This record gives sequence, C-alpha cells and structure tokens, in this order.
Amino acid sequence: MSERRAGRVTIKDIAERAGVSKVAVSYALNGRPGVSDETRERIVAIARELGWYPNRAARALSAARADACGLVLARPANTLALEPFYMEFIAGAESELSSRAMALTIQLVRDVTEELEVYRRWWGEHRVDGVLLVDLRVEDPRIEELARIGLPTVVVGGPVPGNVLPAVWHDEEFVVVEAVRYLAALGHDRIAQVAGVEEFVHTQQRTNAFRRAMEDLGLHPETVTTDYTPESGAIATRRLLSSPEPPTAIIFDSDLLAVTGLGVAQQMGFAVPGDLSIVGWDDSLISQVVHPPLTAITRDIAAYGILATRHLLDVVDEQTTGDRETARGALTPRGSTGRPRSVAAGRVGARRR
Amino acid sequence: MSERRAGRVTIKDIAERAGVSKVAVSYALNGRPGVSDETRERIVAIARELGWYPNRAARALSAARADACGLVLARPANTLALEPFYMEFIAGAESELSSRAMALTIQLVRDVTEELEVYRRWWGEHRVDGVLLVDLRVEDPRIEELARIGLPTVVVGGPVPGNVLPAVWHDEEFVVVEAVRYLAALGHDRIAQVAGVEEFVHTQQRTNAFRRAMEDLGLHPETVTTDYTPESGAIATRRLLSSPEPPTAIIFDSDLLAVTGLGVAQQMGFAVPGDLSIVGWDDSLISQVVHPPLTAITRDIAAYGILATRHLLDVVDEQTTGDRETARGALTPRGSTGRPRSVAAGRVGARRR
Repeated sequence: MSERRAGRVTIKDIAERAGVSKVAVSYALNGRPGVSDETRERIVAIARELGWYPNRAARALSAARADACGLVLARPANTLALEPFYMEFIAGAESELSSRAMALTIQLVRDVTEELEVYRRWWGEHRVDGVLLVDLRVEDPRIEELARIGLPTVVVGGPVPGNVLPAVWHDEEFVVVEAVRYLAALGHDRIAQVAGVEEFVHTQQRTNAFRRAMEDLGLHPETVTTDYTPESGAIATRRLLSSPEPPTAIIFDSDLLAVTGLGVAQQMGFAVPGDLSIVGWDDSLISQVVHPPLTAITRDIAAYGILATRHLLDVVDEQTTGDRETARGALTPRGSTGRPRSVAAGRVGARRR
Repeated sequence: MSERRAGRVTIKDIAERAGVSKVAVSYALNGRPGVSDETRERIVAIARELGWYPNRAARALSAARADACGLVLARPANTLALEPFYMEFIAGAESELSSRAMALTIQLVRDVTEELEVYRRWWGEHRVDGVLLVDLRVEDPRIEELARIGLPTVVVGGPVPGNVLPAVWHDEEFVVVEAVRYLAALGHDRIAQVAGVEEFVHTQQRTNAFRRAMEDLGLHPETVTTDYTPESGAIATRRLLSSPEPPTAIIFDSDLLAVTGLGVAQQMGFAVPGDLSIVGWDDSLISQVVHPPLTAITRDIAAYGILATRHLLDVVDEQTTGDRETARGALTPRGSTGRPRSVAAGRVGARRR
C-alpha cells in the first residue's frame, strides 16, 4: 500500500499526531488489547477529528462483505432515461442502502446474456453482497442461474410458480379490474389496453386481469402490446383510434405510454375525455403536469424499492428465504376520464343530481 | 476468508479440478513463475470454464484501486425521479465505465453537508477512485473541500473562474441567443424565460445570455426562477400568463418545466403556438410525445456523461488536470413555436413566398 494521496487520512497520520506507533493506532482503532483505555480514547478522538475511515477493501477482504447491492437493467439507454418507474425505484433502494452506509451499484446491459455475465463477475469479484432482479419474464433463465451461482437475490415481481428465489411483489390484477369497472360505470363499452413488453410477468398479469374483467362485463377486450417506447405507444394508439369503431377509453401500462397516447389523441382531433378517456399506470409527476391531468393507477414506487432492498439485506444475512407482498396500486381519477360523449348526451334527461 | 457460498468459484475449486495445489493455481493465475507453461494454460482454462474471477477486495487492497466511480445527487428523491437529464447522463457514464469493467456508485443526499460527508467516507474507505461533481453552484464549497482531501474529481459544468479542479463543460450561452433570435424573427417581442435553480452556474449562464440577447434586440427580458419542480414551473407559467401583457413566447430551462408550462397554457385556454410559443431545454423524449411536440434545445446528454467519465478516468490516472469542452446544444424547431397570432394576421399581405 504505497498509496497516500494528499488528504486521505492514514494510520500513519494519526500515529504522528498522537505521538504513538502505527501499531498502537491499529490496536486502538480495531478494538484490540495492547493500549490503555486513555490512549485508545485519545487515538479515536484524533481519528475522528482528522476524518479517518477504515479502508473498505481491507475490511471487505476480512469480512467477505462488499457493502454494496447491485441492480442490472437490460434495456437500451434511451428507453431507460424515460422510465420514471426506475428512477423512483432506484431512489427508494438507494435511500435504504445509504441509511446503512451501503452503496448501490448499477449496470446497464443490452440483453440477458450480458446481464448474467455481470452477475457472475460481480459475485466472483466480491463486488456486491446481493442483487435485485427486475423485469421478471415469464420463462426467466436468470432465476436458475442466480440460484446456481448462489448470489443472494430478491426477485422484484411475481409471484411466479416454481420461482426458487425470494421475491417482493404486489397485486397487479386488483387495480386493473377496478379501472375497467370504473370506466364501464362511466358508460364505456369499447375499452382497450395498450400493454408493455409481452414477455414480462406483470404485463401478462395485467393483460389477463383486463381480459377477465372485460369478459365478466360482457365486453370485448382489445389489447395491443408495445416495447414501452413512445414510438411503439404512438403506433398502438394510432391503430386503435383509426379503427372503424375506435375505443372510447384506453388503459396504458406506463405513464410515458399514457402521455404519448394523449398526444396522439389530441393530434388526431380526439377530445380527452370527451371522445377518449385515458388511464395510465404508475402516476409519476409527468401524468399530473399534462392537460388534462391523467387518471392514473398510483403506486408508491419508492416504497417498493425500499421494501425490496430491506428484503434483500435480510436474504444476505440469511434471515429469510420467503416472499414479501407490498401495497397494491389505487386508482386516482383526474381530468382525463369522463363519460363518453354519446352517453353523456343521451343520459342528460336521466341524470340524477 | 471462511466464506465459500455455493457457486462462487474459489482457488480451491480450481486446484481440486486441476489436481494441483492452491499455491500452484495462485502462481498460474497471477502470472508468477513456479509452474510450467503447460500447467499454467491448463489451470487458466479450468478457471475460465468454472467462471472464476479474482476477488476484487483483495485486488483493491493491493492495487489501491476501487474500480468504481461515484456520483452524488443532492436532490429530493421525487424530483430526481423526474429529471430525464440525470438518467441520460448516468446511462452515458455507466456505458463508459462498464466497457472498462468498472462500476458506477450512486448516492442521493439531501444537501451539500451530507454530500461532502459521502465524499470523505468514500475516499477514506477506498470505495471510489474518483467522482463526478454535478449541479455546480456559483460559490461552491465542494470544490475546495474535494481539492483538500485529494479525491480525483471532474466538475461537470462551468467554466468557473478560480475552479482548481478539472472540468467538462459546454457552451450554454450560444444556443440561448439562437433561441431568442429565432423567436424574435418569428415576430415575438414579449419573450420570457422560466429558469432553473438560481444558484446553479448553468442557470446564471443561461439567464445572462437571455438578458443580453433580449437587450441586443431592444426587448425587455423577463426571467422567473424555479426550483425545477413541476409545481414551481406551473406557478411561474401561471404568473406570466396572468399578467396584463402576457408573453407570446417562453423559454423553459428543462423539458419537465416545458411540458408543465404547456399543460398550464392549455388549461388556461392559450393555444400553442397561436397564443404562446414554447421552447424547452434538453429535449428528452417527453418533449416529443406531447401535442404539439416541443421546439427544444437538443443536447447529447449521454455523450456528455461519456466524456465526463473518460476525463475523470484520465484524472484518476494522472494523465490530465485540464478542462474539456463538449458540443453545445442546437435548436430543434417543432410544432410548439410559430408566429404570434397578431403578427401572423397582420403580416399576411406582406408574406413573400
């Protein structure tokens, strides 16, 4: 360890200031016998005053702990930049870790192959103590591989039958049913869904819930899937609104898709909510600043990140191997939903006030 | 090092498979003499096959390298979640680091005091090799402290007179002047600016450039500052549009502020661009999906993150102590800017085609 940059306080600096040997400082700071209580207190006070911190690499070597958790996102960078979900989730995870003086290490990759390579490297290099696994897929090769290499993992999403790893999830289905029933109660009978990536577990959960809720009401469910990019959301919305009998209400699987859909509707001359009601998932501030502000499925995403991280730290400490469920979303009605124009006109006489 | 979780490959595993001693494996993998070339090749092949990685904690201890760079963001979490700028900047920084098998460590803090504490801890604990300093302030106490403790740093922003740390920056002023002249050429003479946080260097640079460009044209510059939150942007826009002589064009200092301003204008019955032209900074996809799509000052933010990171790694390697300038933004005209209604009507006869 030849290194001694200006300003990084070393054992030697403390020894010089205290007028004792480096060994005495080491004993004092590591809580070992060999120095008097008085000397120990004086050395600890000097270390604190100088701003000394134990070398984490040395500590990690002896403790076999990296004091860091990892998150790998397999997405193109320009999509990520637009997902408020991940910024809020990361903010939650980060707040939990920093309260324990742990770090969050993030890596972006292009695909699952690269993602698995990162996990193997991180684990082999002692870079992380555990990882959060996101964007859970229906047949997810990552689960088996993470279980095989033994890297502590919490799966974010599910529940998935046969998943051998601990998971944190919430009920995606309940609130989709609630949104469909709310739109139907307003008088909508042509309701469509613009969904996210088809292979994701939560997309399938929402799509299945949408289909069942529509069929329960005797309505025809129409779902168009996207890859979450605004381009694909715009194409899906244009296709729906260009059909001979366009929907009078659309549920979008993210806030970015919903704002994009609002733009497409306005550009095509559809009044919102007069001609088209819009409901979006996730309800970041973007949903709230557009005009009209969007009715949204509100989730506490930061709390989801906090819970997932706490659960991961329990897994790392071998305190648990189970699952944890977090609060489901709730529908927040705003200006983008209303009765369809035809119903609003036809029902005027029958309205009760 | 008692630790040996299932799946994490150790020197012992390789030794068992190769039928040699742990010492021989260590010699082979560290490129030291003591084993034959043939044995070395066989051991390296087995290590690769098993997926072995050197323990980074051990390597960091001997190399005095953390193989990580740090980024601290002093912002409330709910604001961060909405800043596409940081997601794109982080994506750029991360892509540069991961191509060198280095990690990005991110921490959110509430204020500068906490931020400085994180730098001191990271440096003392050997957690990072260097940091990127963002949200540069006019009188920034972080510069002196980072220089004092000797943590390699690249300042993102500036240039600031008297800054002793290496910096990466781009010309914020040129494109503001370009935007003002473009709006004036369309016939606008009441142009306002909704600016970001007043203490930030780039806010002052943009505000000064706006004032000079307006005064050069004989126009009165009006600037309202915000804290970058949608709430403050909505208040600023409402105040401007409620005045007796509201502006016919507004330049917003971020895309989120611009989208918020568009929503407020539409809610108040101002047609965009008929009654109000809108220009926004940064031009993330959010600017492009609303209706009308926003005229924006486009920057390659990911490239900014890449350049800043490359520069930081050069600083860490003591290859440079200088500054680097990156490409300035350019104006991208879209549907949110046009001639003001009065001018469009009055000039019809005089239009040349």
